[in-house]
Amino acid sequence: MSNAPAVPRQKAPRRTAERILETSLALFNRYGEPNASTNMIAAELNISPGNLYYHYPAKEALVNTLVDRFEHAMQQVLAQATGVRHLDGAGSFLGLLMAQIWDYRFLYRDLSDLLTRNRQLEQRLDRLFDLQQQALEQLVQQLQQTGTLRPVPAEQRTTLATNLVLLLSYWLSYEYARHPRSALEPQNQDAAITRGTAQALALLLPWQTAARPDA
Amino acid sequence: MSNAPAVPRQKAPRRTAERILETSLALFNRYGEPNASTNMIAAELNISPGNLYYHYPAKEALVNTLVDRFEHAMQQVLAQATGVRHLDGAGSFLGLLMAQIWDYRFLYRDLSDLLTRNRQLEQRLDRLFDLQQQALEQLVQQLQQTGTLRPVPAEQRTTLATNLVLLLSYWLSYEYARHPRSALEPQNQDAAITRGTAQALALLLPWQTAARPDA
Repeated sequence: MSNAPAVPRQKAPRRTAERILETSLALFNRYGEPNASTNMIAAELNISPGNLYYHYPAKEALVNTLVDRFEHAMQQVLAQATGVRHLDGAGSFLGLLMAQIWDYRFLYRDLSDLLTRNRQLEQRLDRLFDLQQQALEQLVQQLQQTGTLRPVPAEQRTTLATNLVLLLSYWLSYEYARHPRSALEPQNQDAAITRGTAQALALLLPWQTAARPDA
Repeated sequence: MSNAPAVPRQKAPRRTAERILETSLALFNRYGEPNASTNMIAAELNISPGNLYYHYPAKEALVNTLVDRFEHAMQQVLAQATGVRHLDGAGSFLGLLMAQIWDYRFLYRDLSDLLTRNRQLEQRLDRLFDLQQQALEQLVQQLQQTGTLRPVPAEQRTTLATNLVLLLSYWLSYEYARHPRSALEPQNQDAAITRGTAQALALLLPWQTAARPDA
């Protein structure tokens, strides 16, 4: 009996920090980071603002921790580019990237504003864009090597990869611009990811080699 | 002599209103609309905040008047799509669209935020996206008819036009995300427009028919 309460006491801070993160992500995604205050997050969790500040002394610390997770998750997905050999695999891969961006859509919703306020974000995002660019250039090269795509001139490969990065990054912003009241709501998840993936895949389709028996 | 001062007195309000608009556009473009207050605009113009409010009773009125102008200018450019027959013309046309977006880049820099605060903007932007979509679908069709592009299946034509709209709309946001301190500064104008145009044109290149004598 004497040890029983000690376990929750030890674990409580970690659990609280985790719950704060999850709730922040949900509120940022739903209302936009600039519109979700730390007081709102504390209220949603039924904790005091002081308790929240104990774990995350500023909203920027919350954002940066969420960016850590996003970076990690995105790197895991990008590492899978090396295994893509055909158009089906490319579609699945682009779908994974799109799903990852959906999960952290608050970052892209107010990117200019976040970047203006958070200098750390600038360098981290820059690195992430570079990784995406590399992975997508590599993917195009692999699809050429398997004969799935016609040869894409090196310069156009760079342009194509940049267009893919941009399209995936801003697809949800475009959906939001067209339908501000519903685009980022959880019920739009599957449709938004499907549409964004299809738009990205469409950049590869015109490079496809003509259908052939099994050359 | 008695009539001479009457002329400036009559014209003054219009001139002031115009100067307010021009200065607002410049400050919005430079610092982002959320970061440029009406007091900042008044100070830049050396007029009192009261004088500014006399012409534009709220910042939203300023934004909406600028959107009027953007709409008008964009419609003028979009009307030129019908004359495009070849890839050179397509490049020039996309360049004009990109230049127009550059001139009103504040709209795209903080689009999600502006849309959240300004419901009127939502419908007007929706209409503008539709007009862009139509013009670009039409452009693709014309390039097919002249044999510049291979036949693009109808469904892919829609997807392609949407990708062009998105790319032009968010190119400057992407440049800002990569270089927040310089991307939207006036000295980046030519390079940004050239790059954005090239990225957009790259969506058409893989559909180009193989070079042929003069079929």
